[in-house]
Amino acid sequence: MQELNTTTNLNTTRDDVFDAIEKQDAAFLKTIISDLHPGELADLLESMPPKKRSFLWENIPSALDADILAEVQDEVRTTLIRDMNHAELISAAAAMEVDDLADVIEDLPEEMRTAVEDSLSDSIREKLETNLSFEEDTAGRLMSTDVVTIRPDVRLETVIRYLRWRGALPEHTHGFFIVDREGQYLGMLPIEALVTHDDAVLVGDVMQPDNNCLEATTSTHEVAQIFERYNLISAAVVGQGKLLGRITIDNVLDIIRDNANHTLMSGVGLDEGEDLFAPVSISAKKRTIWLAINLVTAFLAAWVIGLFETTIDKIVALAILMPIVASMGGIAGSQTLTITIRGLSLNQISGPNVFWLARKEFAIGVINGFLWAIVIALLAWAWFGDVGIGLVIGAAIIVNLIVAAISGITIPLILKRLGSDPAVSGAVVLTTVTDVVGFMSFLGLASIYLI
Amino acid sequence: MQELNTTTNLNTTRDDVFDAIEKQDAAFLKTIISDLHPGELADLLESMPPKKRSFLWENIPSALDADILAEVQDEVRTTLIRDMNHAELISAAAAMEVDDLADVIEDLPEEMRTAVEDSLSDSIREKLETNLSFEEDTAGRLMSTDVVTIRPDVRLETVIRYLRWRGALPEHTHGFFIVDREGQYLGMLPIEALVTHDDAVLVGDVMQPDNNCLEATTSTHEVAQIFERYNLISAAVVGQGKLLGRITIDNVLDIIRDNANHTLMSGVGLDEGEDLFAPVSISAKKRTIWLAINLVTAFLAAWVIGLFETTIDKIVALAILMPIVASMGGIAGSQTLTITIRGLSLNQISGPNVFWLARKEFAIGVINGFLWAIVIALLAWAWFGDVGIGLVIGAAIIVNLIVAAISGITIPLILKRLGSDPAVSGAVVLTTVTDVVGFMSFLGLASIYLI
Repeated sequence: MQELNTTTNLNTTRDDVFDAIEKQDAAFLKTIISDLHPGELADLLESMPPKKRSFLWENIPSALDADILAEVQDEVRTTLIRDMNHAELISAAAAMEVDDLADVIEDLPEEMRTAVEDSLSDSIREKLETNLSFEEDTAGRLMSTDVVTIRPDVRLETVIRYLRWRGALPEHTHGFFIVDREGQYLGMLPIEALVTHDDAVLVGDVMQPDNNCLEATTSTHEVAQIFERYNLISAAVVGQGKLLGRITIDNVLDIIRDNANHTLMSGVGLDEGEDLFAPVSISAKKRTIWLAINLVTAFLAAWVIGLFETTIDKIVALAILMPIVASMGGIAGSQTLTITIRGLSLNQISGPNVFWLARKEFAIGVINGFLWAIVIALLAWAWFGDVGIGLVIGAAIIVNLIVAAISGITIPLILKRLGSDPAVSGAVVLTTVTDVVGFMSFLGLASIYLI
Repeated sequence: MQELNTTTNLNTTRDDVFDAIEKQDAAFLKTIISDLHPGELADLLESMPPKKRSFLWENIPSALDADILAEVQDEVRTTLIRDMNHAELISAAAAMEVDDLADVIEDLPEEMRTAVEDSLSDSIREKLETNLSFEEDTAGRLMSTDVVTIRPDVRLETVIRYLRWRGALPEHTHGFFIVDREGQYLGMLPIEALVTHDDAVLVGDVMQPDNNCLEATTSTHEVAQIFERYNLISAAVVGQGKLLGRITIDNVLDIIRDNANHTLMSGVGLDEGEDLFAPVSISAKKRTIWLAINLVTAFLAAWVIGLFETTIDKIVALAILMPIVASMGGIAGSQTLTITIRGLSLNQISGPNVFWLARKEFAIGVINGFLWAIVIALLAWAWFGDVGIGLVIGAAIIVNLIVAAISGITIPLILKRLGSDPAVSGAVVLTTVTDVVGFMSFLGLASIYLI
């Protein structure tokens, strides 16, 4: 491994790389690259516009291809694979770990996939098939099959002799898995047990019963929660009691980050693995769908305003003030919505405490509703010199902030119950509610009391 | 360690715990608790309203206090500490690791802090002071000082004999740190080296030069990026070449999650460590500040509308349609803003590619601007039977979507340059721009061409 680079160093390196690409100076580019770690190259590729990314990718030694493909985000990987020919892809596949390969192979066009699969050895192909037999986003798909297994009836000294003969262990090996002759998983022997116990004892006598093993069908979201909850570094994966593989924390890290980013990105209609440097055509298409959905809700709000056309025609001040009611409701509602969605994803919200939370949000809605109603009423009164307008907007603010608070907690719960992801559609539904209720209450009250 | 619980199991357990607390049945509660892992109890405490949380906390055996306090989110920890007396806190502090203690002690009221500090042994207090001498959110504060160090001039068999004599290793020990007599850090000996090499060789001959060690002053944000980039499991922390401690990935996990959540939560004026079950008074206060900021921008937008009072008075359709222009701009802008903020936090945006990105966003703004301008113009024309209104709203949509795209990328970059966190203030500034530009362009064009 080469020297570790700080982010500042890497930024300087990136400037140099950009420079070399700009000048099409492949020789200089190769010199810079030769000092870099695959993780650094992955970062660099992720932060390059398409043409520069292709040029850089072509100049990276193919020995690093496997590591880099395993490291980059999904969307970026697709662009890299598009630049590779059959031979390059086959040699990269040969160097990949099975779990990474399973991830990559699903993204390949049909004929490339067949070519890669045909190139694999029987034992690797079998492991790959096991991996792919589990659904995406499960422990079975995430696991690595590269594990060291030991029988319980041997002495530690035998294990140590075997390991000395074997040489290097698989990356991130923190322990050995004890299985019987039928492959049934019996427990763990942490690597440190080899050097903290007398070497004459039997593995079976010092192994630990492993209560942290995961069923292969466990969702990766749950795997991440389990790793966090129990502070795990690695865990065995089993199916029907048989050892299938192991998951190490470096795989879980990506899931934790993706889960957290998911809420952020899907709130504006994007994927958590979004490629910042995707070409305009792809990005514009994704975003336009979100704008289309929003347009429907915007026209709905406009239609509500249209119901009060004659009222606005008489008191134009209403048109001026109405965005304030909608906007305050939107902000208050998003606060509740965001905290609820996060609570759901952390599994902090369930039956018995929902009522407590709903009451809390209602109380906050009432408090903030009255507070801001007074402030806004006074400001509106002062602006238009009409106490009636002040009273009406104050009342509308109270209504909208209370509705916003209740919607902020009930909308994600209902969406979840309906099997829809609240992180994706919660904000759209919420702002529709706060817009409609905001305009309706403000203009409705005005048409009753001010006309 | 007890049996691992799935989330579904834990939810059932939580229902039982709620039930026991509801009935004030301490005996039954203690039975349930006795089967739970500190990580599970931390999760449970985090998902309890204040009174229930207190009751549960009182009934948890104090032997688990240290582990639980280390595990829960900051805000929840504050509420737990408030329920503890001096004696309980002192005994919890004694059982804590120094890095966790440093985290906790800063949250304590002055006199409690002094009491806890006085209770510590000299060696622990010294370690704590080293830890606290580094700024918050640095590697020096995050590190654990519980490390096993070895001299380079001993044989592996001596190391193994020492370890057998020593017994259990500190949690998550993946290697030993090689230091000379002056404490200068020389390199790493991975634990597996002890069992894959002949035990007659010298430590110095098989140790690895460690290029992954971190300066104690490195920010935790950078620590997280380094762990992700280089797939690290643990790293040494040094200061002036001397070994100070180590950081393991389980500490980094929390940072990665917090960093990702930060963007999400601060976009609505909340902290990433927000306690979902904070009392109404605390939550209402936090959220009201955000509403206050938003109110200023809402009044700014209203003021812009007010400039065109006479125009709206003549053509009331403008009042009906104007939220559509503002809302489409707001959505398009948030998409660009979100992806830019994420790109900044992943360090994917720097000098040479900013121009490419800005051009890309501009192109998306133009494409989506024209597309939706046509759709909205036709709908508005059909609705109000006035081709002029259609043309004016179409033009305003184009202007606002282009401005939104450019603002979405420039606002976070400018905020960052000014030393302000784009995740906190980006959205407020952006919607102010899209509201003002949306109303101004729509109503402005209308007053020029339609009156």
